[in-house]
Formats: sequence, C-alpha cells, structure tokens
Amino acid sequence: MVLETIPEPLSTEELATVDAWWRAANYLTIGQIYLQDNALLRRPLEPADVKPRLLGHWGTSTGLSFVYAHVSRLIRRTGQETVYLAGPGHGGPALVAAGWLEGTYTESFPAVTRDGDGMHRLFRQFSSPGGIPSHASVTTPGSIHEGGELGYVLVHAFGAVMDNPDLLAVAVVGDGEAETSPLEGAWKGISFLNPARDGAVLPVLDLNGYKISGPTVLARKDPALVRSLLEGHGYHVLEVTGEDLPGMHHRFAGALAEAHHRIRAIQHAARTGQAPDGVPAWPVVVLRSPKGWTGPSVVDGEQVEGTWRAHQVPLSGVKENPEHLRLLEAWMRSYRPGELFDADGRPTELVHANDPAGDLRMSATPHANGGLLTRDLVLPPVADHALQVDRPGTTRAESTRRLGEYLREVYRANPTTFRLFCPDETNSNRLGAVFEVSDRTWMERVVPGDVSLSASGRVVEVLSEHNCHGWLEGYTLTGRHGVFATYEAFAMVSASQTVQHGKWLEEAEHLPWRAPVPSLNVLLTSTAWRNDHNGFSHQGPGLIQTALTQRAAVSRIYLPPDANCLLEVADHCLRTRSRINLVVIDKQPQLQYLAPAAAAEHVRRGAGVWDWAGTDDGTQDPDVVLACAGDVVTMETVAAAAVLRERLPQLRVRVVNVVDLMRLRRPADHPHGVDEFTFRELFTDHVDVVFAFHGFPGAVHQLVHGRPHADRFHVRGFIEEGTTTTPFDMTVRNRVSRYDLVLDALNNASRLPVGAGDLRAWCQGQLERHRAYVVEHLEDMPEVRDWTLPVG
Amino acid sequence: MVLETIPEPLSTEELATVDAWWRAANYLTIGQIYLQDNALLRRPLEPADVKPRLLGHWGTSTGLSFVYAHVSRLIRRTGQETVYLAGPGHGGPALVAAGWLEGTYTESFPAVTRDGDGMHRLFRQFSSPGGIPSHASVTTPGSIHEGGELGYVLVHAFGAVMDNPDLLAVAVVGDGEAETSPLEGAWKGISFLNPARDGAVLPVLDLNGYKISGPTVLARKDPALVRSLLEGHGYHVLEVTGEDLPGMHHRFAGALAEAHHRIRAIQHAARTGQAPDGVPAWPVVVLRSPKGWTGPSVVDGEQVEGTWRAHQVPLSGVKENPEHLRLLEAWMRSYRPGELFDADGRPTELVHANDPAGDLRMSATPHANGGLLTRDLVLPPVADHALQVDRPGTTRAESTRRLGEYLREVYRANPTTFRLFCPDETNSNRLGAVFEVSDRTWMERVVPGDVSLSASGRVVEVLSEHNCHGWLEGYTLTGRHGVFATYEAFAMVSASQTVQHGKWLEEAEHLPWRAPVPSLNVLLTSTAWRNDHNGFSHQGPGLIQTALTQRAAVSRIYLPPDANCLLEVADHCLRTRSRINLVVIDKQPQLQYLAPAAAAEHVRRGAGVWDWAGTDDGTQDPDVVLACAGDVVTMETVAAAAVLRERLPQLRVRVVNVVDLMRLRRPADHPHGVDEFTFRELFTDHVDVVFAFHGFPGAVHQLVHGRPHADRFHVRGFIEEGTTTTPFDMTVRNRVSRYDLVLDALNNASRLPVGAGDLRAWCQGQLERHRAYVVEHLEDMPEVRDWTLPVG
Repeated sequence: MVLETIPEPLSTEELATVDAWWRAANYLTIGQIYLQDNALLRRPLEPADVKPRLLGHWGTSTGLSFVYAHVSRLIRRTGQETVYLAGPGHGGPALVAAGWLEGTYTESFPAVTRDGDGMHRLFRQFSSPGGIPSHASVTTPGSIHEGGELGYVLVHAFGAVMDNPDLLAVAVVGDGEAETSPLEGAWKGISFLNPARDGAVLPVLDLNGYKISGPTVLARKDPALVRSLLEGHGYHVLEVTGEDLPGMHHRFAGALAEAHHRIRAIQHAARTGQAPDGVPAWPVVVLRSPKGWTGPSVVDGEQVEGTWRAHQVPLSGVKENPEHLRLLEAWMRSYRPGELFDADGRPTELVHANDPAGDLRMSATPHANGGLLTRDLVLPPVADHALQVDRPGTTRAESTRRLGEYLREVYRANPTTFRLFCPDETNSNRLGAVFEVSDRTWMERVVPGDVSLSASGRVVEVLSEHNCHGWLEGYTLTGRHGVFATYEAFAMVSASQTVQHGKWLEEAEHLPWRAPVPSLNVLLTSTAWRNDHNGFSHQGPGLIQTALTQRAAVSRIYLPPDANCLLEVADHCLRTRSRINLVVIDKQPQLQYLAPAAAAEHVRRGAGVWDWAGTDDGTQDPDVVLACAGDVVTMETVAAAAVLRERLPQLRVRVVNVVDLMRLRRPADHPHGVDEFTFRELFTDHVDVVFAFHGFPGAVHQLVHGRPHADRFHVRGFIEEGTTTTPFDMTVRNRVSRYDLVLDALNNASRLPVGAGDLRAWCQGQLERHRAYVVEHLEDMPEVRDWTLPVG
Repeated sequence: MVLETIPEPLSTEELATVDAWWRAANYLTIGQIYLQDNALLRRPLEPADVKPRLLGHWGTSTGLSFVYAHVSRLIRRTGQETVYLAGPGHGGPALVAAGWLEGTYTESFPAVTRDGDGMHRLFRQFSSPGGIPSHASVTTPGSIHEGGELGYVLVHAFGAVMDNPDLLAVAVVGDGEAETSPLEGAWKGISFLNPARDGAVLPVLDLNGYKISGPTVLARKDPALVRSLLEGHGYHVLEVTGEDLPGMHHRFAGALAEAHHRIRAIQHAARTGQAPDGVPAWPVVVLRSPKGWTGPSVVDGEQVEGTWRAHQVPLSGVKENPEHLRLLEAWMRSYRPGELFDADGRPTELVHANDPAGDLRMSATPHANGGLLTRDLVLPPVADHALQVDRPGTTRAESTRRLGEYLREVYRANPTTFRLFCPDETNSNRLGAVFEVSDRTWMERVVPGDVSLSASGRVVEVLSEHNCHGWLEGYTLTGRHGVFATYEAFAMVSASQTVQHGKWLEEAEHLPWRAPVPSLNVLLTSTAWRNDHNGFSHQGPGLIQTALTQRAAVSRIYLPPDANCLLEVADHCLRTRSRINLVVIDKQPQLQYLAPAAAAEHVRRGAGVWDWAGTDDGTQDPDVVLACAGDVVTMETVAAAAVLRERLPQLRVRVVNVVDLMRLRRPADHPHGVDEFTFRELFTDHVDVVFAFHGFPGAVHQLVHGRPHADRFHVRGFIEEGTTTTPFDMTVRNRVSRYDLVLDALNNASRLPVGAGDLRAWCQGQLERHRAYVVEHLEDMPEVRDWTLPVG
C-alpha cells in the first residue's frame, strides 16, 4: 500500500543545504529590515550602516523561510510543481530573500543582482520610498497573494489549484490570520476539490503563538482541540513541534514527505478510479515553533523570542543603542554568513544546492504569474443567444437567463479554463442553463434526489461570498477565467476583497514582468429594485460606490439595460485582462429595448441617445434630457418619456441611456471617459438632465463633477428607502418612478409648453393614488408589467 | 454534583401545550405566506382567499418555531431571561407568529389584535406593501437580529450576553448560514466569554440539510466530523435527530434541559470560585430535522419535505391550481386549528399555557429592545484629558493616546456598560491606557509573561473585524455602549455589517415602540496617509464612501484634525443614540492646532474658518479658499497657507477646516447640513475652493453637489496611489502635498499678485527635488516633522 511507504529521511547533505538555505534567508531578512550598508558584514557594524527607520516583520519571517526551504527540498526530490502562498504576508522579506537566493529576483528586477552589490540594493530598497513594500505582494516573484489584509490565503490556494491537476499550493496560515472569519470559512475548500482533476492544497498552520500584541486563540488551545477542529473540517493532521535543531529539520521534512505522499495517494486513487466517494482526508501540517525563532532571545531583560515582542523589529533604536547594535551584529553573524555567501556576495553552492531547477523554483513558477499561462477563451457568438426585439419596450424577458445560456456555451467550449462561482444562487439568478453542461462541484455525500450535483461538476456554489470571490481570484491569478455572480446587496460582504484585488491589479500594471491575468468579473444581480420581495436587507447597490474608488486602469462598471446589451457586455468582459468588471442587471422578466445589432453598437459606444424614446428631433437642443443607467430605472425613464410624448408632445425630450458608467468621467480621469464633444452630444452643455440611476445618486454626482454645468444634473437613484413591497413601490419610495421623473422633467425643463400644469397634477394624482392604495390594501399590488411603449 | 441531575422529562400536559403552541405557530406561518382571507378556515378555502403573490420561507420556519416552543417551556420552568436570535432569519413568519401568540405583537402594533380580525391583518400585512418584511428584523418584537444577510447570528448573540450575567441567548444557526465565513469565525466567541460575569450563548445548529437549491456542507458531513469540529471549537455537543413525534419533543426537551443545566453549572462554578481555568465546554445543540418539517411531503410527484424544494413556498400557483389549493387546505387543517384558536380567533388556553409571563416572553424581553435598559454613560470631563496648545501648529502629540486616556476613564466610571472592541491593535492604535483599568478578555490559557490578559478583562481583542463589529452591535442593541477601533483600510472587511446595522437603525427610527439604542462608534485610525510603512494594502479610506450612502438620520462622519477636537468628538458620539459615528484620525504624532475651548467651539460648529492660518482679514472675499478635512491633509493645508503667507503675502487666502463632514450637505439632505448663509460664510459663493480631503475626492464632489457653483470645488484626496514609503511621499503621490496645494491655489485664485510665477516655480522645484530624492536614494526620507507655523 502506497500509504505505508516510509518517507525518506533527510540525508546529512540535505540537512546541511536546507539549513544553510534557511540561514541565508534569515540573514537576508534581517539585512532588509536593518541595514543600508555593510550588507556582508565585511567590517564591524556601525551605526551608519543601520537604516534610519526600521520596518518589517521578523516574527513570522523565520517560519516562512523554514517551510520554504523544506518545500524546495521536496520539489527537488519529487519534481512537484508548487506555488507558495504566505498567509502571514507581513513576512515579505522572507519571500523576497527566497526569490533573491533562487535568482528569480534578479530575473524580475535586473538591477538587484545576485551578488554583493545586489544584496546591498536588496537591503536598501526594502520598505523604502521608491523601493518595495514590506509584504509579500504583487512585486514579489512567485506570489499570487498579498499578505496585507489577512484571511485569504486558503481561498487563494484553493482557487489556484482548481483545474490545475499537477499543481500543489503550499499555503502557510498564520495563527493571527487563523482568527479571521474569512480564513475560518476557507478550510471547507476540500469539500469542493476533486482530486481526480484538481491539484492539491497543503495548509501549514504556523502556530508561533502570537499576533501583534498578544497570544492567539489556536496557539493557546489544547493541541487535542486543534486536532479535533481540523479533523472536523475533514483533514488528516500532522504535527511538528519544537525549536531544537537539527531535530526540527528532520521532523518537518518527515511531516512534509508524509503529507506529500498522502496527497499523491489521494490523487492516484482518484485518477485510477479507486477512490471511495466523499472528501478524502487531505493532510494539514500544524507547525509549532517560536515566534522570531533563531532571533534575539532576551533584549533589555525581556523575553523576545517566542513572544509577541518578536512580531516586528526585535531590536529597536539600533542606531543609537550600542548594545543593540552589538546584539544585531552577533545575531547576523550567528547564521555564519561566510558559509552562505562567497567573496562576491553570491550564494554559495551549499545554499544554492537547495534550489529546484528552472520553473520548479517556487519564486519562478509560471502559475504565480498566471498571465503567462492564460489562453483566450473560446467564446460563442453572441448572436446565437440574442433576443429578437422588433419594437423597443414591447416584450419582456429574463435577461440573465440569456446570459446563462451563453455561459453554458462558454463552459462547453472551455471545459477546464472557465468557472462560475456563486453563493448558491445560480438557479435563482436564472443562470441555471450552465447545469446542462456542468454540475455543481460537490465532494460531500450525494443522495438520491440531488440535482446537478457531482464531484465532476465545475460550477462552484457555496454559501459564502468570501469563498466565491477568493476562489475566483486564485483561479484568475493562475491564468484562468471566471465570473462571480451574486446578489447585489451581498456583494458588500466581499467588498474588501474587491478592493484588495483591485490594488493587486493596479500595481501589476507597473511590473513589466507580470503578464496580465484575466479580469475579475462580478455579476451583480437580484438587485435592489427587484428585491422588493426580500426586503431592505437585500436592497443595497453599495459595491458601485466602492468600485468607483479604484484606479481608472482597473475599474469598470456596466449597467446593461436589457438582454442583448448584457450579452455584448459579457462578451467584452470575458475578453479583457486585469480589470474588475462589475456588471449590474436584475434577473426578473424585464422590458427589452434593443435588437442585436443596435445593442452591439450601443455597448460599443457605452452611452447613446435613444431617439425612439424621446421627442427630440436633433435639430435643436431639447428642453430637458432624461438620462438613465440601470435596467429598472431605464424602464421608468422610457415610461416617463412615453408619458411626456403622449401628454405633452410639444416638450422636446431627449432620452440618453448609459451602459458603461465610466463614459461619464472625463478622459483625463478614465480611459473610457468621453471627450467634451461627445459629452455635449449626449447631454448638451446647458440643458438640465434628469438622471435616473440604478445606484446611489452620489455616484453620478461625483462622476459628472467637472463636466460643463454639472449642477444641471438632477440625479435620482436608490436613496436607501426600501422594504418588502412591490417593484413599482420601490421606485416610488426612492422617487425614481415614471411619475417622479415626469415631475422632475417639468420642474427642470428649459421651456414648458401649455398643459404642463395639468400633467403635473396628473402625475401627483398617480403618486397619491399609489400611496393610498399601499396604505389601504396591505396586499400585493400589480406591478406595471404590461407597460408597452407607443413607439413610432 | 449538579451536573448529574437528570433533566425533568416533558409531562403529558407540557407535551400537549408545547406541541399545540408549535402547531399554532406553524399554522400562522402558513397563513402569512398564503392567505389574504378566511384566516381561520371557517369555510373551505377558495382561490380568492389566497394572496396574489406568494412570498416567505416555509422551509426554515418550522424548525425555528419548534426550538422557540421548547425554549419557552424551559423559561417557564426556570425563569431564565432569554433572548432568541434566528440566524435563518428568512423564517420571519415564524417569529412574527410567536410574537402574536405571546401577545407582544399586539402590544407593539395595536392594530394587529390577538383575535380573528388581528390574525386576518397579520396574514395580509406579511410581505405586503405597507406591511412588514419577510425576515425576522427590526420590526419583529423580540428580535435584535436581521436575518437577511446571513452570518452574524453568533456574533450578535455573544455581544448581547457580554456583561449580561443573567441573560441566555439562544442562537439558531441555519446550516446555510453555517457555510458563511463570518459564522464560521464566530464559534470562537466562547474564548472571550467569562461565565462569572457574562451571560451564556446556546447555539442550536439547525441542520435541516438544505439551502436555496442544494444541500449544505455540514448536513452532508459524517455526524462524527461535525461533532469533532464543534468539540474542536471547545463545545460540548448534544444531538437531536429525527422527525418522529412526539419522540422529537421528548428528545429535544431533554437536550435543552441538559444544555441549560450545563450552562448553570458552568456559571455556578465560575461565580463561586470553583471553576478551573480555561474555556468551559459550553453546550451546543445539533438539531437534525427535515427542511419544511410537517409541510407537504410530495407535490406533483416530487419530494418537497426534507429537500431544498421546501425552502420558500412549497405549494406554488395555488390560486390557479385546485389540487394545490386542496393540498394547502389539508395542510393547514392538519394542525387542527380548532384546538388552537377559539371562536374569536384567540389562542386557546392549551396554546397560551406555553407562554412565559410578562418580560420573560422572548418576544417581550427588554434585552431585545435594549434602549429600554440603556443608561447614559458617566463621561469624564474632556478638559481632564485636553492638551495645552499655546500656538497652533507648533507642537506634536499622538491624538489617539489622549483618547486612550479618556477611554480609560470611561472604563473606570462605567465598569459594566462600556467596551472597546479592536482587532488586536489597541496598543498599536495608542489606546493602551485602557489597560490600566481593564485587561484584555481572555478565557484561554494565560502564561507567565502575558501582559494585560485575563478572564476578568473587558477590552475585547480578536483578530477579526467581523467579530469585533458584530459583538459591538450585539452589545449596543442590548443597550450598552462601545467603540470599535480598527485600521482604516480594514474597516472594509466589515463594511457590509456597517451597512446592515445602518439599515437596522434607519428602520428602528420609524418604530415608536423601539427605544433608541447607543450608537455604533467606529474609530478609523492607522489611516491611509500614515500607513506609509505598511504599504498599499493598508491604504484605503473606503468606509467613508460606504457611510455616505446611509440615511441622513444615521450617518455621521467626523474628521477631527487634532487631539482636542478628537476628545470633543468622542464625548459627543458617546452621548448619541441610533447613529453610526465614523471618527477618522491617525495615531502617529501629529501637529496640534486648537486649545481646548477653541476645539470645543470648532467641533460644535463642525466647520470653521481658521483665521490664524490664512491671510483673509474678513473685510472682503478671499482670492482662494483652502479647505481641509482630515488630520494629515489639514497639516498640508496649513503648511500650504504658511508658504503662501510667507512667500506671497498679498494673496488673500482663507483656510477652512471641516470636522463634521455632513456639514457640507444641504440641510434638506442631512440634519447637520449648514444652511446657505453659513455655507457662504465658509466658502463664499463664487471663490474657488481647493479642498484637501482625507478620503477619496469623489466623496466631497457628491457632498457639495447642488451647492452654489459646486464646480469651483477642486478636491484633492486619496487617489489610490500608495506604497511603502514616507508619510510626506504619500501626500506627493496623491497630489495633496503642501506644494501641490500651493500650486492648486495659484491655478485657481481669482487674482494673482506679482510673485506668483516665482512661487509656482519654487513649488515645482520642491516637488522635483522630492521625486529625484526618492528615485535616487531608495531609503527613508525625513518626514517634515518640524514644520512650525509662523502664526501671528
């Protein structure tokens, strides 16, 4: 039986090289934190050698390097393709040191040569202006994980190995990070990981005991409880505890070998059809070693090693404190740099011998620079899924259902490079057609009566926005494509992930060696306006506000008004790289406006005048512009225009629909921003604009700031008024109903024909009747479902 | 030994009344979902009796009512004060039914009488316009938990019982919710719960097996693994499985009695000094029963009961489908309504006998209407902690350190009604003075060398924004006071909680029976501008954008520029009710501007002209206004004004500082908005304003929209440009440095004195020198720490 094979012990030579590599990494870590000169300690350390500002996180770095050194040995032994994710990413210097030792750093940043000069530069650039950040981040070769905001290391790891059968993701989980909710929610990734077709995640729970200023929950728990917890999640627990050397090397090497062996056995069984059903007991390693291991033990009479005092800079005030300077030098020399770096400052053969070859180096794996591996999706023709629309606003359809059929074909044509992630709402969001091609991924028990559920499924549903978002990040950062579809309001649950992933993409643009990765596509559906039935908690278009704050290079927001526009937007988004594409559209049956060709043109322009909806003949400026962005408010706007056309035909009304919200920005502020000429063509330069917006009005206010006479934009939108009610009542409560828009138009038009007063009274009457009806009847009201637009 | 007492079994009478109560609740749940007439089934059901739109969630409701009925019995037996939290809050009708049966509903909503007419109204109002939402929510008597966004039931429960020694929070965790990350991260609450002084949380994990459209992870796991998981978290697991009646009644009553007994034993031991150290094994009940239990088993040949098909409305199209109508009637009659409601539609004595008395009814507990129990905080005099400031901008201090000393006194004066919640950053945020009065709460092992850590501590640190935010919500909703202090960037982690809690407070304002609760105070510190050392991931003032979208009744944003203003703001916030108060200020040493009295006046006004900083003598309009909101940008603005005063004294410059951001809004939009006269006094009505803002510029753009000539506001702020660098470089990268502001002033002033060209060249030179220095030196640069302002 494979499982009983005894892992090969560390040979004397291997021990020497693993230990040397670890010492070298630790030396380089300290150098980055402390030194601006005398990198190789060719002379006694002087105050001037020390940086004026000491930054960095020693406490976690040594554990990260320890694990790294041993995984490198495993790779050399096995040829295992591996990506390394440092959950305690504050240990950036450890990862930077690894890349420099492996030569990758110099490949990415040629100025940082792998010699004494380069080491000098490596030290000076760390955490310095013009240099590099203190975390493992986008600037770190081999990283697909920014370690600043804690909690996401496991979700990134699981996303990375989905459909990557040969990849192992070693994910170091810090015990501070282990307290976060996203991390605790991420252990369940194995319930969605199919060993026959996906790679493996090996979590290393690094219990060094402390976070910034206190102990951690898991480190202080009885180890039996920690075991019970991880076993409850379904893992096989391997434990390595201590600080003795070389004992820890031998024990950790053994645990790692056993873990890898178990992974291979699980995969072998699954890939040869010998695996039982259910979730295999994937290994997890629990490593208990002192925080700041091998660092200064006691400083100024206080215990530092093995406590929270080792978190950042264990020796402070080194420039001014001769004793601390002496301790620093002794500490650095304790790693015996003479054995580690040759006369030119290059890593010696002893150290180098631990490095895997070429792309097997974890700092060089192309999986961590996923754009290198990205293949364009094979996309189905949009036309195959387009709706026939003969006259605008006369038919209804569930737009997202069309998208579901389109995505079904994307799945079919790209069976291993595309996934849809969704918190259990694929059917609810009308995207269920994908199940005709792929089941839901499910490694837990399947029982009779289950629908579209199997280990071979690739649609990923888990009731956790954090997992969905994070898995998609991991999936795209390793070069594959996908969509995260979620209820609009609950997109705020993972808003911080959207922000942080945006920062990653923003920074990646400045790194020529980073190949662009597929965009993160977020479909916000089941929107505020049509969560009338679910109530106020489900009504929140807040993610738009957040996306607006991201850099223009990354941020995209699309509000297609109907199915054909949605298909065009989807087709576009799936072709892009390095963007966060928010696409906002509801799932309920909705009016359809544009035939396929018109939709393609409209989406290409991003915003346009809808002649058929207005009474503006184009020969002169209109009296008022009715603009809209978003499906429901577009319906209300078109209906308002129809009311005006019918009841006050002399008023010149122009209707403008905006699909690509960034068109509103100035070209200097966003690449999609329309120039002044186009802006004037749409909105004139002085006529008042009644703008009905899907989200919070402030979004449009900030977008049009700086445009000519921005004060003339009167924005209606979601003003945080909601409850369980009818769709139409939602628009009344938020003052964006057709009647409100007509009143706004009359209040702001540059010229009012005779009859405006009557129309105003009629609209007010309609609104009063509606409100009275709501109060009196306490029951469901008919939505204005059959509003058909009298078009020419 | 208390623990060995055998819980008393359900007597025949108790069984009858618990079961009758449960049947009554189920009947009322179905009625709310389906009926608009014929509530008591006095005649055969007709299509016209059925609502036109069927909304609600049957699947989870029956389990919620089952647990509720049994907890009521426990309360009657023991007099235990209990608050009930429904994690699967979509089961709103179950909770509404409970309140109606207990009479509380009629007390809160007198129109909904406890008789046939009231039942009719109860049914019609549910999920109807003008009625009530479909979730357990703020409108539900007895609720402190909105069930729309899943994941927070345990954090709310733990927050509710902190410092509430006599309170039990029964928290039903749905198995869908159990997949969310916030919920998974919340089990650890017991590591922070002291049985000697806090109440208890009894989680009931309701594994009915399914979420909207598929099975759940925990329900499909081997029960041994679920046990292992919960035991790993530290709980004692009690399991109840089945659907047989009355067997389930007996077994669940037994489990509940045992759980309660264990809780009492744990508390007794702790309160009599007999408890061992460490986290006691609090009980958790795992209830496995079919989804939609007692509902239609098979409909149209498909299994419904016990599957995801029972999630919402198990019988659809009832108005049109005579067979479904027949099934509905049979289903409702299966509860034998004749036994449950008397001729007038009132609950019979059989049902009523299950209700606890008065405030012990869970729907009536004052803990769930915490404003009733709120006592004002005893606040220390601000003057005791104020800084002496002789001349503006000449001294530096860590403002939050002063706040820490103030909060220390708040702790001292309010030992059981105030708490600070923080993700392990209390010291880092310079609030550590609180530890002079209270340790950190810690029930896990304490070892020699631990600092400020004990079971008796009341400062709550856990590395989880979700827990901190949620615990504070639970703490304030039950009437106590607190502050959540966090790194500004990571406030986005819990942004969705901020949004949802805001919705709760917004709705509560419209319910006269809800007493206002203490505000949720969020201190955002370690801000973007001074996370220069931690880098880009730590630089994000995004929560301001989110807070701006909340209703004006709730949303408050304060940006005190210095310590004395911060103290005044804190004093104000801790006196308020029903607000979300964001307070934004960094923790690093920063310039101090205002003496105590001036700070009090400035904060009272919320915005004011700083005469001492500008050259505007007030006799005529200035040439340009330099406005600012936020500490670092205020320093840059004051410095820019000093440069102008020194180098271009003829330019009339007015400096305006804004503390209360909502002052910028129009009075019609926000109660804090200044009127037009005051706005003009601050900003004139036509002079250009260079506005240096702490957050994203779009925030100010949307706030000033609609003010006179809003286009003249040129807003500088955080434009998502960051890295690990110096504080000053952060301002340069984001174009809000003193030199950038001087250039902006010169570019926008209405009049330029001679010498402006030279000054422009000088500023550009300063910026070029800075950038060259960054590129060349790759090392730390001196912050402009010693900028002292030449004031008159």
